Amino acid sequence: MAIDIVVFGPHPDDAELGCGGLLLKMKDLGYKTAIVHLTAGEMGTGGSSEVRLQELENAAKALNLDHIEVMDFHDCQIVDDFESRLKIATIVRQLRPKIVLAPYWGSPPGRGLGHTDHIAAGNLVSHGVNFAHLHKMPIPGEIYAVPRMFYYLLPQELVPTFIVDISAYAEQWFEALKCHKSQFYNEKTKSFDFIEAVAARAQSLGRIRGMKYAQGFYSPVPLLGDDPFVFVEREPGEAKTEKPSHERWP
Amino acid sequence: MAIDIVVFGPHPDDAELGCGGLLLKMKDLGYKTAIVHLTAGEMGTGGSSEVRLQELENAAKALNLDHIEVMDFHDCQIVDDFESRLKIATIVRQLRPKIVLAPYWGSPPGRGLGHTDHIAAGNLVSHGVNFAHLHKMPIPGEIYAVPRMFYYLLPQELVPTFIVDISAYAEQWFEALKCHKSQFYNEKTKSFDFIEAVAARAQSLGRIRGMKYAQGFYSPVPLLGDDPFVFVEREPGEAKTEKPSHERWP
Amino acid sequence: MAIDIVVFGPHPDDAELGCGGLLLKMKDLGYKTAIVHLTAGEMGTGGSSEVRLQELENAAKALNLDHIEVMDFHDCQIVDDFESRLKIATIVRQLRPKIVLAPYWGSPPGRGLGHTDHIAAGNLVSHGVNFAHLHKMPIPGEIYAVPRMFYYLLPQELVPTFIVDISAYAEQWFEALKCHKSQFYNEKTKSFDFIEAVAARAQSLGRIRGMKYAQGFYSPVPLLGDDPFVFVEREPGEAKTEKPSHERWP
Amino acid sequence: MAIDIVVFGPHPDDAELGCGGLLLKMKDLGYKTAIVHLTAGEMGTGGSSEVRLQELENAAKALNLDHIEVMDFHDCQIVDDFESRLKIATIVRQLRPKIVLAPYWGSPPGRGLGHTDHIAAGNLVSHGVNFAHLHKMPIPGEIYAVPRMFYYLLPQELVPTFIVDISAYAEQWFEALKCHKSQFYNEKTKSFDFIEAVAARAQSLGRIRGMKYAQGFYSPVPLLGDDPFVFVEREPGEAKTEKPSHERWP
Amino acid sequence: MAIDIVVFGPHPDDAELGCGGLLLKMKDLGYKTAIVHLTAGEMGTGGSSEVRLQELENAAKALNLDHIEVMDFHDCQIVDDFESRLKIATIVRQLRPKIVLAPYWGSPPGRGLGHTDHIAAGNLVSHGVNFAHLHKMPIPGEIYAVPRMFYYLLPQELVPTFIVDISAYAEQWFEALKCHKSQFYNEKTKSFDFIEAVAARAQSLGRIRGMKYAQGFYSPVPLLGDDPFVFVEREPGEAKTEKPSHERWP
Amino acid sequence: MAIDIVVFGPHPDDAELGCGGLLLKMKDLGYKTAIVHLTAGEMGTGGSSEVRLQELENAAKALNLDHIEVMDFHDCQIVDDFESRLKIATIVRQLRPKIVLAPYWGSPPGRGLGHTDHIAAGNLVSHGVNFAHLHKMPIPGEIYAVPRMFYYLLPQELVPTFIVDISAYAEQWFEALKCHKSQFYNEKTKSFDFIEAVAARAQSLGRIRGMKYAQGFYSPVPLLGDDPFVFVEREPGEAKTEKPSHERWP
Repeated sequence: MAIDIVVFGPHPDDAELGCGGLLLKMKDLGYKTAIVHLTAGEMGTGGSSEVRLQELENAAKALNLDHIEVMDFHDCQIVDDFESRLKIATIVRQLRPKIVLAPYWGSPPGRGLGHTDHIAAGNLVSHGVNFAHLHKMPIPGEIYAVPRMFYYLLPQELVPTFIVDISAYAEQWFEALKCHKSQFYNEKTKSFDFIEAVAARAQSLGRIRGMKYAQGFYSPVPLLGDDPFVFVEREPGEAKTEKPSHERWP
Repeated sequence: MAIDIVVFGPHPDDAELGCGGLLLKMKDLGYKTAIVHLTAGEMGTGGSSEVRLQELENAAKALNLDHIEVMDFHDCQIVDDFESRLKIATIVRQLRPKIVLAPYWGSPPGRGLGHTDHIAAGNLVSHGVNFAHLHKMPIPGEIYAVPRMFYYLLPQELVPTFIVDISAYAEQWFEALKCHKSQFYNEKTKSFDFIEAVAARAQSLGRIRGMKYAQGFYSPVPLLGDDPFVFVEREPGEAKTEKPSHERWP
Repeated sequence: MAIDIVVFGPHPDDAELGCGGLLLKMKDLGYKTAIVHLTAGEMGTGGSSEVRLQELENAAKALNLDHIEVMDFHDCQIVDDFESRLKIATIVRQLRPKIVLAPYWGSPPGRGLGHTDHIAAGNLVSHGVNFAHLHKMPIPGEIYAVPRMFYYLLPQELVPTFIVDISAYAEQWFEALKCHKSQFYNEKTKSFDFIEAVAARAQSLGRIRGMKYAQGFYSPVPLLGDDPFVFVEREPGEAKTEKPSHERWP
Repeated sequence: MAIDIVVFGPHPDDAELGCGGLLLKMKDLGYKTAIVHLTAGEMGTGGSSEVRLQELENAAKALNLDHIEVMDFHDCQIVDDFESRLKIATIVRQLRPKIVLAPYWGSPPGRGLGHTDHIAAGNLVSHGVNFAHLHKMPIPGEIYAVPRMFYYLLPQELVPTFIVDISAYAEQWFEALKCHKSQFYNEKTKSFDFIEAVAARAQSLGRIRGMKYAQGFYSPVPLLGDDPFVFVEREPGEAKTEKPSHERWP
Repeated sequence: MAIDIVVFGPHPDDAELGCGGLLLKMKDLGYKTAIVHLTAGEMGTGGSSEVRLQELENAAKALNLDHIEVMDFHDCQIVDDFESRLKIATIVRQLRPKIVLAPYWGSPPGRGLGHTDHIAAGNLVSHGVNFAHLHKMPIPGEIYAVPRMFYYLLPQELVPTFIVDISAYAEQWFEALKCHKSQFYNEKTKSFDFIEAVAARAQSLGRIRGMKYAQGFYSPVPLLGDDPFVFVEREPGEAKTEKPSHERWP
Repeated sequence: MAIDIVVFGPHPDDAELGCGGLLLKMKDLGYKTAIVHLTAGEMGTGGSSEVRLQELENAAKALNLDHIEVMDFHDCQIVDDFESRLKIATIVRQLRPKIVLAPYWGSPPGRGLGHTDHIAAGNLVSHGVNFAHLHKMPIPGEIYAVPRMFYYLLPQELVPTFIVDISAYAEQWFEALKCHKSQFYNEKTKSFDFIEAVAARAQSLGRIRGMKYAQGFYSPVPLLGDDPFVFVEREPGEAKTEKPSHERWP
């Protein structure tokens, strides 16, 4: 089973929050998409494991994912150690993604900043991805080198390396987030007001470059810009010129 | 005359040094390319104005440029003021480039770091590009908004936002640099040893991502990553998959 | 005439955009507020000088300002030089503010980033404020030392030093911005859609700390935290405890 | 038992060093103060556990603390793991502080820089504070959300977010530090010369803003500046003006 | 056995890659040099433990090392914990180096960036060096305080604190690297092309300051510059002036 | 007249404040030292031009300078332009220093931060030093390339690249500063209390590395560390070992 783009999320809803619009857009462009949930989010204030597993399945449908997986790490107890990295590497060898996304590994720790599981997952997935291409690792599957990793859930002081225009997918993304009702529905205000906050952030990010909604991602290595014209957006209505095709993936 | 990509260089050889490989590659991809030299480099230790004008013409041919221009700023005296910005804006309106490149505006000042003309040019071109799309500027030509600006001649502490694989163009680039013999030919060592240093830098940058030679560029705003697969290089020999085309320029 | 808080803005609408909510809140807390416009914004695509002068007066009323001033600098030509600093210093000595706000001095230059007038104004006002308290400056008025300067119009990569909850003033702020119809009314979309973008940014900033709307500001020196409990917001509904009063201004 | 401000220190003397002046001032303003020592500092070259426990009690009296606690972590072995976070969270639920202080989590590791216990404690306390407000944590006590965390023991390259004028408490602070005679008394020089170094640092920090002695603290989120006039110090002798009271805690 | 300069490397070849030129130069200046390998690199794709142990001995000879040591940590499983730090501290007390080098502790995690063992080793060695000078540590040997630590394997965004001219030792360094044939010999290209990449990086770094080849290192504390003229290179051929000797080690 | 180390100061007392201890130490090591004052500091609140010229001469004697110079720039009006750079370059060609020091060019602007003359002087001297080695500059004197530039008056967020132990010269330095009585003598407190603040900063900086007093400096390029043992201080009383002499200047 080859998936083009795999997002690892520490708790159900993290991957959807950080990458939902991107996943919808990628699917629409013809790529195969997946989320791997490291835990069932069983320590969350709202929602039992059962409820959250159902919610993540609903969200997966709303995002048109090709694949989901729920690993058996424990909520609030993710650790970046050898055994855990082997588990990640095993899945990487199975899914063989072109792009892996993980939470940013270096956020300041603490409530409302870097949850311990977010920080641990960022490190764990990064090292697990590395393990996947080492021949001697005591795990099954053919070795596999993920071409590129990006990071989401960026702290405020980190400028995204790139942003993605998700304006056309925003409403669908918000609907997918609403599947996580146990997390996002505010009983007091009788509304999904957190999702409004998420929307404001995406609007704010998009307006930097004239988009309605955007999501931002970080690359710890410089991006490829072999044809930097791919970084230049067309003006609305501008005809697409016929230029030599780009000699790279895809 | 519409040029796709225009590099502004403070002295003849700066644009070639910082963007030569890129310009060759862009030309090969079918784009129209140009260099605008702000000065004739008349204060350089080697070479008179006449010699340097001849050299920049030779280099332009070696780089297959579609257009060159030499402005009348004075070497070591470039200033980022209102009148100078109008001159830049006028040219921008004529050439109407999709991408403009200028030297990085924020290098530390001083010998071997940020030459005063490099720093001034970075600021001047940035503001001039802005002036080009303001209706009321007292200059001829239809207003024009440059879609994207990037910067070259990056200080060591600034990680490039993206790098460009120029391996296939490296030799041709070095030949173009040799046109600036008054600047790069070392009479003592009877060799172009500075160009060897430039090559080492490009090799070093390329090896980060498995290329033989690369050039690096900086964007002060996050890049567009609408289809982040354009950031993923194909493995050598990997078949180009048929994916939906990218809805953006070009 | 003593004003508590003075915002210097390069063009009519800059101060309102960057500090409108703050000015409304300060006024409500009993402080005297003012905007000093450095130029009439005569180079803006929309609006003549006359129109913009009228608009800034309307906006001043909508923000309940105690004072406005329009200086005679030229749009797109603000320069941080000796004569200009004397003009700033003269006004500072007249208004004698406790807090001065200016655009951030260190934004990257260029369109959509740091307008040349924003960068120049940030430097000019900073140095002019310093000149105001030097005895020998050839300007009228009693010397005056501004207690504190903050900066607005922060680039994306600069985390605000502090944010201000302006939720209660947001609607009033947006109304004030609409006074600058020549700048913010989009004839194509028949809407003030740029103001929606501004609102999204303020929402996004506010949600960091559970507010509906916030504005952010930067201090180049550490803040005073003599009683750091002033940094701790009360929970909604929490009774205000009786604690010893803070021995500082006001 | 509700404590207003709680400082977590890895070894006896760390909290006193980093926050002693602040704690004295807060007490004087009417707040309840406490130190939680994670270890007894039993690996310190000078002083046995017994000696150090006596010293920290003496220091607590000298700082007029309302409460002290000594946890059973081992010196040089503090680990940021699940069980340890539960212990921190339990204490947080008991003390229910408005402000928590911990050592900065991101210092460079090594001798004279970030002691392993300092780095671990910064992470551990941050995550433990988060755990305290999660309903499902297997620990006693009512859930509790700490309103604000700050950090002390900042590395040299980190500018404090705010500084606190402790000039009036400096002598008392130094006396409190002298209680840790096993750590700070230099048998060779027959003096508390390390405390002189601490005093120099506090003097140097204070002089930035015209104070005799100050301590500096770091916030990973922007501060609240609802009334930024609280950031403006009164001139000595200036009458306190009557302004509307600030609607926030306390 | 007192060694002047000790490099700790996570896998055989890391210390040689990051510090090979430096070690050759130091030896030539008369210092005693050593490498401590934390693991045998048994997880590397090429080479068994036996092969790699033989290779590191060959490399040691090629670098003229006075001492080598191979610890019993496991490849891909290095952990910065208490027991591991005691092992490091024990060796530090035996070798009593003036300078210790370790991999940089703060690289971004992941393939081609910070290998988990590199990051762990950077932290582990830093804390182990600290433990070596604590009296009460349950390890043999006289306490010892390492005067200075530096870091190698720097990420691209970290400017080296200092660079070392290794031009005279480059060829010898490359020969030493070739001893690690199982790691560096490319069967496909029938060449040591990775070593060419290493050479390009060293050339690039050296050209900053007019050297042919250099290696770069990072210090988390400011350097000593008691006589800053030691930072000024002589012009080639310039006679060495007779200045008062420098009052410091050595 | 060849001077080894030349400090450019914008106003009389700046060079003394930032580099006084260093200059005394360098003189003691046998180097020739000088200060070039760009202005007479005529805008300072205390002291006329005449008084300040006398004071700077006294300070020069107290610092045992070999040479002083006062240029004719105007206080508060230093500008980094072509003509000014020629003046700097002319002096550089005359004095031919091995090391030049200038105020840091990138401080935040404003009162108590970066005085306009400090920022301008940092840029001006950097570019002037570059001009000195360009053959075609319309100035007298043989071209000259300054081997190394460092910066002083560092903003708080900039960690010095290196610090210099000036403990043995601190008292003499303070005496030299007292020569600038018009600037540093506080008529209200009847004391040189600003100099006490300067001393606290130097103490604080020194304590990082176990010195009583230190001054810190910044290098925009990595330092030379050909023999990194020059970065390692001897323990007090440790015999100076006989090691091969360092092959560099001096």
